[in-house]
Amino acid sequence: MTEEATLPEDRLLALASSALERGGMRGEEAAEAARVLVLADMFGLRTHGISRVAQYLDRVRLGGIDARAEVAVHRVAPALALVDAANGIGPLAGMRGLREALAGARAAGIGAAFVRGSNHFGPIAPYAFLAAEQGFATIVASNATTTIAPWGGKDTRLGNNPFGIGVPNPDGDPVILDMALSVAARAKIREHAARGAPIPEGWATDAEGNPTTDAAAALKGFLLPVGGHKGYGLAIMVDLLAGLLSGAAYLTHVRAWDKDPGLAQDLGHVFIVIDASRLGPTEWLRDRMADFASIVHDTPAADPARPVLLPGEREMQALHRARREGVRVAAADLRRLEELAGS
Amino acid sequence: MTEEATLPEDRLLALASSALERGGMRGEEAAEAARVLVLADMFGLRTHGISRVAQYLDRVRLGGIDARAEVAVHRVAPALALVDAANGIGPLAGMRGLREALAGARAAGIGAAFVRGSNHFGPIAPYAFLAAEQGFATIVASNATTTIAPWGGKDTRLGNNPFGIGVPNPDGDPVILDMALSVAARAKIREHAARGAPIPEGWATDAEGNPTTDAAAALKGFLLPVGGHKGYGLAIMVDLLAGLLSGAAYLTHVRAWDKDPGLAQDLGHVFIVIDASRLGPTEWLRDRMADFASIVHDTPAADPARPVLLPGEREMQALHRARREGVRVAAADLRRLEELAGS
Repeated sequence: MTEEATLPEDRLLALASSALERGGMRGEEAAEAARVLVLADMFGLRTHGISRVAQYLDRVRLGGIDARAEVAVHRVAPALALVDAANGIGPLAGMRGLREALAGARAAGIGAAFVRGSNHFGPIAPYAFLAAEQGFATIVASNATTTIAPWGGKDTRLGNNPFGIGVPNPDGDPVILDMALSVAARAKIREHAARGAPIPEGWATDAEGNPTTDAAAALKGFLLPVGGHKGYGLAIMVDLLAGLLSGAAYLTHVRAWDKDPGLAQDLGHVFIVIDASRLGPTEWLRDRMADFASIVHDTPAADPARPVLLPGEREMQALHRARREGVRVAAADLRRLEELAGS
Repeated sequence: MTEEATLPEDRLLALASSALERGGMRGEEAAEAARVLVLADMFGLRTHGISRVAQYLDRVRLGGIDARAEVAVHRVAPALALVDAANGIGPLAGMRGLREALAGARAAGIGAAFVRGSNHFGPIAPYAFLAAEQGFATIVASNATTTIAPWGGKDTRLGNNPFGIGVPNPDGDPVILDMALSVAARAKIREHAARGAPIPEGWATDAEGNPTTDAAAALKGFLLPVGGHKGYGLAIMVDLLAGLLSGAAYLTHVRAWDKDPGLAQDLGHVFIVIDASRLGPTEWLRDRMADFASIVHDTPAADPARPVLLPGEREMQALHRARREGVRVAAADLRRLEELAGS
């Protein structure tokens, strides 16, 4: 078992902000980026939470990320923005993209931002959650370091590009899908490798393209896309939207943060935001969301001990628990964060 | 082998239009709906092409579809429209949704239409193709008759909701993903059942939720989602966007056209359209699309006889062949269409 620590959301936010600010970010921007990573930990998505602060700042020190990047926004149409993250910290780029997409949606009912020159922006769930809290539905996606072989091919040329959709729920939890397009996330394989555990079959191949359960070998090979050619197809389309159309790198042009930490990745993201309040009154949405959830929850379960859940429901339960009892993080991650925050 | 017939695109369009018009549609609207179905046949998507005309008109005769529905458009924000298809023919509803989303995108850079009160709208590829020809990227989705059990459940409460993304390519073929969120489409299982062939393992279960390779038993059971819980999650999100947010039916509220052909289905669709020309000049997009395609195509193939393809590439090849050599359809479908067209 990993040794754990529990602390209040505010305290974790302050620590992450301080660490990012000491690492070179401007104060307000550090707080914005910290918000994304702390929400990730509250959702239980530990591999994408405050554990990333040290990794981001390592890259800042190596010149791979510019902590003081001047993010530039070009509003190319009333509801459409191009955001150049100028190689800044990923979650800051993400928050700017979300803000611009929200501004477009407020003005026109739907808005989008295409972000280039970015880095790892955390998980998608925090962005979808922040938008849903304000009544907006979202489609968010990013490209990523190449880890997948195109379907029928045997060379890694495509990321396991995360893709997510969120729908707000006026009186309840939003429904949020946040998935990588590989069967398993690379961070999960890294986690298995770190503790010397094997990975399940079907997750990945070794460097020669042979199926493997050896986590270390899998990190040298490629991830398998979810659902075979359909997951491959979706990963390609995400790269076209988030990478190619944003003006960012795509496919093999994306640099791997783990192999070349000192080089800019030039990742791209896309944020599409819809103002649900334009589609119908709050009570209408509330009633329909409640009805939808009850139809899903009332489905007879194959295993009575495991009731049927909506996408993101487990993460929303974790968020409520974190607000009640504090945020749980790995003790080692917390110590490292405290060092970086100088506290 | 199915007996086939080949005829020019124009001739097939005229036949499908006449059949739909004789079935009760207004002339111009019949031509719009026929365009979608004929494109489906040109893409080689025969189960979603002109073979559907007879099925749609059967439902019109039973009172299940209103061939003369007055589609109503409510522009609720500069870039956002609600379309009430008033139980009209599905591909007409789809074309109206696409038109409204395009209008929003022309005005604001991105636009969306949420369509309710609709029916089976054909495949997604034709809509994505028509938008891409005008330089627009698309995200299109629809809910569908319930055929899937929620993940971990054993009752069909969710459609295998089709989901698609298209990206334009100024000097080449657009890249178009068009997928149902089951491992295999129900139409494919129906096709197997019709010729008494077994289905592959992993496609579906029987009525009790047990895996089956018996196509007839599978039609009484439920489809398996692609990629397990990830495909389930995406199917839920599509239903929330296309069904719930549009004001249409969702989950078990959707009526099955095959079980209740005389009742309105109240399907919902969502069309999101992005004006790619606002993101960069034509030459920029052309060069990047060509580079993207060459990186994918140059991937060493696992089987040298099967080169790596982009999503929709096979369908685009079929379209070019159909334009050169004529559209191939099943001879029986053509005879039925000719009868309906009174020719």
